[in-house]
Amino acid sequence: MLGTGGGGDVRTGSLAATRAIREYGEVPLVRLADLADDALVVPLSGIGAPTVSHEMIHSEDEPKRVAEEVERLFGRPPSAVMSSEIGGSNGVAPVAWAAQLGLPLLDADGMGRAFPEVQMVSMYVAGLPADLVIMSDVAGNVVTIRPVDGLWSERLARAVCVAAGSHALMADYVLTAAQARGAVIEGTVTRALEIGRATEGAADPLQALQDRLDAVRLITGKLTDVERRTTGGFVRGTATIEGTGADRGRRLTMELQNENLVAIEDGQVRAMVPDLITVVDTETAAAVQTEALRYGQRVTVLAWPCDPLWRTPKGLDTAGPRAFGYELDYVPVEELMTRG
Amino acid sequence: MLGTGGGGDVRTGSLAATRAIREYGEVPLVRLADLADDALVVPLSGIGAPTVSHEMIHSEDEPKRVAEEVERLFGRPPSAVMSSEIGGSNGVAPVAWAAQLGLPLLDADGMGRAFPEVQMVSMYVAGLPADLVIMSDVAGNVVTIRPVDGLWSERLARAVCVAAGSHALMADYVLTAAQARGAVIEGTVTRALEIGRATEGAADPLQALQDRLDAVRLITGKLTDVERRTTGGFVRGTATIEGTGADRGRRLTMELQNENLVAIEDGQVRAMVPDLITVVDTETAAAVQTEALRYGQRVTVLAWPCDPLWRTPKGLDTAGPRAFGYELDYVPVEELMTRG
Repeated sequence: MLGTGGGGDVRTGSLAATRAIREYGEVPLVRLADLADDALVVPLSGIGAPTVSHEMIHSEDEPKRVAEEVERLFGRPPSAVMSSEIGGSNGVAPVAWAAQLGLPLLDADGMGRAFPEVQMVSMYVAGLPADLVIMSDVAGNVVTIRPVDGLWSERLARAVCVAAGSHALMADYVLTAAQARGAVIEGTVTRALEIGRATEGAADPLQALQDRLDAVRLITGKLTDVERRTTGGFVRGTATIEGTGADRGRRLTMELQNENLVAIEDGQVRAMVPDLITVVDTETAAAVQTEALRYGQRVTVLAWPCDPLWRTPKGLDTAGPRAFGYELDYVPVEELMTRG
Repeated sequence: MLGTGGGGDVRTGSLAATRAIREYGEVPLVRLADLADDALVVPLSGIGAPTVSHEMIHSEDEPKRVAEEVERLFGRPPSAVMSSEIGGSNGVAPVAWAAQLGLPLLDADGMGRAFPEVQMVSMYVAGLPADLVIMSDVAGNVVTIRPVDGLWSERLARAVCVAAGSHALMADYVLTAAQARGAVIEGTVTRALEIGRATEGAADPLQALQDRLDAVRLITGKLTDVERRTTGGFVRGTATIEGTGADRGRRLTMELQNENLVAIEDGQVRAMVPDLITVVDTETAAAVQTEALRYGQRVTVLAWPCDPLWRTPKGLDTAGPRAFGYELDYVPVEELMTRG
């Protein structure tokens, strides 16, 4: 994930959202079709290394300072908050930010999953110029970046994030509703809610989740090795899962950069970005974020197809395996599955 | 110095200025008293490690992009360019930037010398809030920082500078003429011109320079050791000069961070920041910048008092020896001279 703006993992993000709703009131969910063409949508996310953001104190002033800067630059206040990435705490924390700002939340996001780098958003793939980033940190600084392209937005935003203590709140793009149409992935908040409802209280949460996502089960087993380091504002490393039960004797290795990027078994790639690879607790089906992976955990690794936008040539250029330095040609997870 | 925005040392800066004047016309020098209260003054400087900026290609678009951002933020274009620091190429390059923008140059600067860090400007010492920095790099990116204080402006601007390739053009503060009165050091461009006229073609340029500055001659000798490293956007190190002629047997050591910070002889401090310590070519009296120090050079080290602003408590807090990590109580150079 870009970072954990709500002040930690999904649970901490949920607590922040619950508290904000109690204090500021319910957050209406709006569809893009409900917004006037010139209404401003602010895609918000936390940026930073998750291991750091867990220890950061979250300030409620950060969203307000971003909204003030939007109004200063555009001459009108934002009309809605959007999650930049629906995965991790960045999928939940925008509820808190919207509540604090008294704004509705847009039923959409910029990834349909989570990605570690700033330019890896649907708006960029859709061809909207990555020409504005607004950042606000805990100390109270506000930085506005007008980058020449998406790669520079990542480079400069990451540098600012590291200088600000490896954590900041970020608006990557400010969109009119007209610009957002076709450039964001719609319905993802609703889908997340549906998944939550399907698994919560289910007799077999893992099976319910797998069915809902139409996901491949890559392995069920035990985490036997986790190697992780925080570098340049990212958490990088590898994790190894040894199969248990029906999967005994198998072994899956995952490459990490804030997210799970590539899953390998017996030298064969089983799934790769931009398809989704998710580690969940085998018993509860709760997602285990990369920074929470611990030796001995009983987990299952699921994989499922990304939004079709990411499978276009520009989508793969932006967030395919080569964008992360892997010399791999992308093969969709459903094809890899039939090969195995 | 903050960096060498003109694309290199003083000579390169002079060439850029000469070329810009030829292409865009003469640059009028204006006094602060000539400007209307609400006229906008943009203090410009290059920021970066000088050893890097020597190798950077300078883009003429950088000042234009800063001026555009000023107009976007303030609703009116700037009325004059000011040099943030009169020392090094940042003292000369603003002539080129003013020519490119078709603006006059203000007869003033923000230091009355050169300093390595962003917050070390007279505006900060005078109590103006350090709440706006605009940066523009060779790639075309523009970054606007609204820092909570001067120390954050340095921290964030330095991070952006390093990410942009260790060189950028920077407006540190944008001042109305009313704000600038009493918060900038006036007359320094005129003084620099007078020094140039006094030394150029003089029979004894070094003596002419020393007289004009009312400077102490710390040593005349040969550079026998230079240790320098580029780290975090700065050049740091030490330089040793062994006396020759009348100074034979003496040895002066200087501590560097882009500028000469402390001069020590026989364990005794001879001069320290914020007073000026300058290395000049013994024959021509031309200044030798820290990044141009080379083994074997025949040099003279001069020291003279800084502007009184730097000797106030806030001035010393900002740019006294302790601001650079030296556990020294500031003693003015003229007092140290009488002690020796």
